[in-house]
Amino acid sequence: MAQKPSIPKGTRDFNPEQVAKRNYIFNTIKSKFERFGFQPIETPSFENSDTLMGKYGEEGDRLIFKILNSGDYFKDLRRNVIESGEFSVDFFEILQAINTMILLENEDLSPSEIIKNVIEVTSNLNVEDNQLLMNFFTENENEIYDFLRENKNPNIIDDFKKLINFKRGKFKKVYKDYINNLNSLDSKNSKLISEKALRYDLTVPFARYVVQHQNEIDFPFKRYQMQPVWRADRPQKGRFREFYQCDADVVGSDSLWQEVEFIQLYDEVFTALGLNGTTIKINNRKILSGIAEVIGASDKLIDFTVALDKLDKIGEEKVKEEMLSKGISEEGIKKLQPLFTLKGDFGTQINSLKSILNTSKEGQKGIEELEFINNAIATLGLKSAKLQLDVTLARGLNYYTGAIFEVSAPEGVAMGSIGGGGRYDDLTGIFGLPNVSGVGISFGLDRIYLVLEELGLFPETITKSTEVLFINFGDTEALFCLKAVKALREAGVNAELYPDKITNGKHMKKQMNYANKRNIPFVVLVGEEELKNNQFTLKNMESGTQDKVNLDTLISKLK
Amino acid sequence: MAQKPSIPKGTRDFNPEQVAKRNYIFNTIKSKFERFGFQPIETPSFENSDTLMGKYGEEGDRLIFKILNSGDYFKDLRRNVIESGEFSVDFFEILQAINTMILLENEDLSPSEIIKNVIEVTSNLNVEDNQLLMNFFTENENEIYDFLRENKNPNIIDDFKKLINFKRGKFKKVYKDYINNLNSLDSKNSKLISEKALRYDLTVPFARYVVQHQNEIDFPFKRYQMQPVWRADRPQKGRFREFYQCDADVVGSDSLWQEVEFIQLYDEVFTALGLNGTTIKINNRKILSGIAEVIGASDKLIDFTVALDKLDKIGEEKVKEEMLSKGISEEGIKKLQPLFTLKGDFGTQINSLKSILNTSKEGQKGIEELEFINNAIATLGLKSAKLQLDVTLARGLNYYTGAIFEVSAPEGVAMGSIGGGGRYDDLTGIFGLPNVSGVGISFGLDRIYLVLEELGLFPETITKSTEVLFINFGDTEALFCLKAVKALREAGVNAELYPDKITNGKHMKKQMNYANKRNIPFVVLVGEEELKNNQFTLKNMESGTQDKVNLDTLISKLK
Repeated sequence: MAQKPSIPKGTRDFNPEQVAKRNYIFNTIKSKFERFGFQPIETPSFENSDTLMGKYGEEGDRLIFKILNSGDYFKDLRRNVIESGEFSVDFFEILQAINTMILLENEDLSPSEIIKNVIEVTSNLNVEDNQLLMNFFTENENEIYDFLRENKNPNIIDDFKKLINFKRGKFKKVYKDYINNLNSLDSKNSKLISEKALRYDLTVPFARYVVQHQNEIDFPFKRYQMQPVWRADRPQKGRFREFYQCDADVVGSDSLWQEVEFIQLYDEVFTALGLNGTTIKINNRKILSGIAEVIGASDKLIDFTVALDKLDKIGEEKVKEEMLSKGISEEGIKKLQPLFTLKGDFGTQINSLKSILNTSKEGQKGIEELEFINNAIATLGLKSAKLQLDVTLARGLNYYTGAIFEVSAPEGVAMGSIGGGGRYDDLTGIFGLPNVSGVGISFGLDRIYLVLEELGLFPETITKSTEVLFINFGDTEALFCLKAVKALREAGVNAELYPDKITNGKHMKKQMNYANKRNIPFVVLVGEEELKNNQFTLKNMESGTQDKVNLDTLISKLK
Repeated sequence: MAQKPSIPKGTRDFNPEQVAKRNYIFNTIKSKFERFGFQPIETPSFENSDTLMGKYGEEGDRLIFKILNSGDYFKDLRRNVIESGEFSVDFFEILQAINTMILLENEDLSPSEIIKNVIEVTSNLNVEDNQLLMNFFTENENEIYDFLRENKNPNIIDDFKKLINFKRGKFKKVYKDYINNLNSLDSKNSKLISEKALRYDLTVPFARYVVQHQNEIDFPFKRYQMQPVWRADRPQKGRFREFYQCDADVVGSDSLWQEVEFIQLYDEVFTALGLNGTTIKINNRKILSGIAEVIGASDKLIDFTVALDKLDKIGEEKVKEEMLSKGISEEGIKKLQPLFTLKGDFGTQINSLKSILNTSKEGQKGIEELEFINNAIATLGLKSAKLQLDVTLARGLNYYTGAIFEVSAPEGVAMGSIGGGGRYDDLTGIFGLPNVSGVGISFGLDRIYLVLEELGLFPETITKSTEVLFINFGDTEALFCLKAVKALREAGVNAELYPDKITNGKHMKKQMNYANKRNIPFVVLVGEEELKNNQFTLKNMESGTQDKVNLDTLISKLK
């Protein structure tokens, strides 16, 4: 039966034009990464679950795609249910068999007939389970036959009770275990059916890579990685279940020159993409900690930053209200006043921060770092981006320990951040390599794609693949053409022959249409006459002009 | 707790050198694909299970990696066990509750105490299950109280029987269903826990793509695709659970010019990789069918080809024995005699085939096709590969309908095929688009990698990423250097500054070591003196020579 084809929600097919456009972005980023001395690595699409689970919070764990173990995972699951309850499944078989016996024994059947009936009732059991049942009968044979011999006895209930009591201790335990098993399948049995999971981001696999290969790596290690990641998020506009991340990180150095480099790298990439006027926002975790300290809310750092982050959206008054409601004191908020009106260039803002943070050592360290970076960038210059201090910037707060970056698209383009990153001090600690400082940035491919599309910044040339199509008039002409096609390819021209030959006039149009639809700029026609004269008719598909040329001219015209 | 990091068996990390080498192969193949007019597409890493299952045979189905549905899949599983058996799980609760009642009723407890005890026993049930149990009690309240009121009656067995009989019809069915459920979890419930699966090859997703997007595609559709696939195969040397496939296919044309193109494409790619002396083996399904026909073994085509395929390995006699054992007649095998000694060039072999196949129409069609392809290739020429007819070639027999290709590495390299492909007549039929002929080839990336490595054919330049490292003597020098780094990058030179500054003599060595280990050919030193004179000391890491140069000279020397 033919299936109606579709793909899973949140995933995408990419057609040739989309692939070309995506590769244009990838290649631009890649060449700049390498220009800056970053080296590529790649990690497997799936990692051991242990590597990923517990690294992204509870919500993250839920969004990780788990892969079913191969083989008969259900067999293991079934066995586990049986084994963990000692004999939980067959227990019910036994109980059922006994009940059947009770039902049958009043029908004046012989013991052997009763046994036969019991077996019939349980004949759907698999070999393994039948064996368990038979074992039970063997072990309890005398008891069962005593039970059956008292067939006509109205006090049969006592025998039944005796039998049940005999099993009673186990009964409760087994029953409990069985129910618990069913209820706790999630956590207890999940390893039985899944031990691998699809990559959720590139950062945790990178940390795993660094620790695993630490003896082969020359630190500081400047790596880049451009690979897909998968998240079981609810799909929506611009949010996919499979998408690429493009990350560059340096681990093994706490030098601030890296922050300077990353700002230049952002500027280089976006300039190369023709995306002028981006804003690279920068902040420092130490500034945020410092502010929280001076207003006496160090324990409320997250509440404080979450509220501050909303300044643009909800305004000063609402932010203050939220801070109050979170238990930040009126007095503390007063101290923040200069923050709400923090305006002007980097230097002016830094000066305001200095006055706010004059009692916080950590805050002053943050200011020092920001000044270092800003001074270097001021000396080196940026091509098209603007560096802007944004004390409300707090992305991934629990993660970053120093600089925090975020890039926003040029003004007028309604798009969230198109890049972000920061410094983290102990990423590899979770895998047993503590005290390795790292700093990195990421490019948001899908959003950059949308911005370039919106602004019409994709170069036209990138979607033009084949430069010339040879019309196929018949086998003799085709072979003649293929020699020219070969010579053209040799000269670096993407060339192809239409595979099917013209068998009547209509097919000619079909071939021309193919060239048109595929946006192929030139067509070559070789009919009887051209064949005779060893010539080619070259047609410019845009202007419609035609020239009769020899092979050398053909090559030089298309090269 | 620190975890000892590792990756799943059968998967690989790729370090910068390996990525560079792999990309060299990818880029070479890609540029030739595009030179020949193929366009890239990409499909999602996972497809709906329905799209993949049943397309690769039973063994293939087993080797497909399935992805667990997100959310509480076990909840669905549990619910299904309960629902499909009407009330199979709570049935056992009920049975248990009744048994508990029987046990308790002789202990002179009041009905309410008995109920309380039953509830205690079942207190481990979750809310849902408790609700089901309570529903049962409510629905059967009178029956239960009748049962309990007859507490002191020695004939209690009758009441018990009455109750059991009341449920008896359901009992058997429920019990059977429950056991069946446990036994058939694999097929029946697998959808509940998994509806997506990782791509197993590129061919089936391509067929799905063609059918799904048929209205947007201009046929004949020449597409290439280079993406990873996943197989739950037992990992072994050279066989991985995640590996790339590089495929080019044309669908929508049955022109033999495509076969001619693909042979040239193989030749172009392997020549570009420096891998001279490959053998492109070709056969045709119609030849095999024809031979089977003339020896009267059309119904034994597969047995016949499987045996013939072993000619190289086990020799003529053993092949004949195998054929006999499969029921191919002595007489038929006699007719095959010329096949066993099929030698010489393409033309000579074709002539032998003509005599064998002179009574088979299909066989003659196969010969015609082979001759067409061979004549075209003879005219066009191959750069470094050799085209060879191999009538024993039968890969993917059930799949291919015309040409069959396989490429073997140059003689002396112990490696299986490094590429293969063929023509298939109805790939898209399974998705509802019949009668679309296709032909395609595939490149075996991992094997090509191993061959290039063995023969030392990777160009040295591809693993050299950074061309010049600036030694970091301190912040002032670093900023001075970064200006030069920026200018060099602008000129297309991959340049970087060592991030950490020298704080004592030892660190200088560390920085030089870093350049050495990373294979960086030039180092620039800027100390106090250079800073004063606006100069750079350029050191050639191979020769050890040093020059003092200004910025312009530095750029021109490194460009």
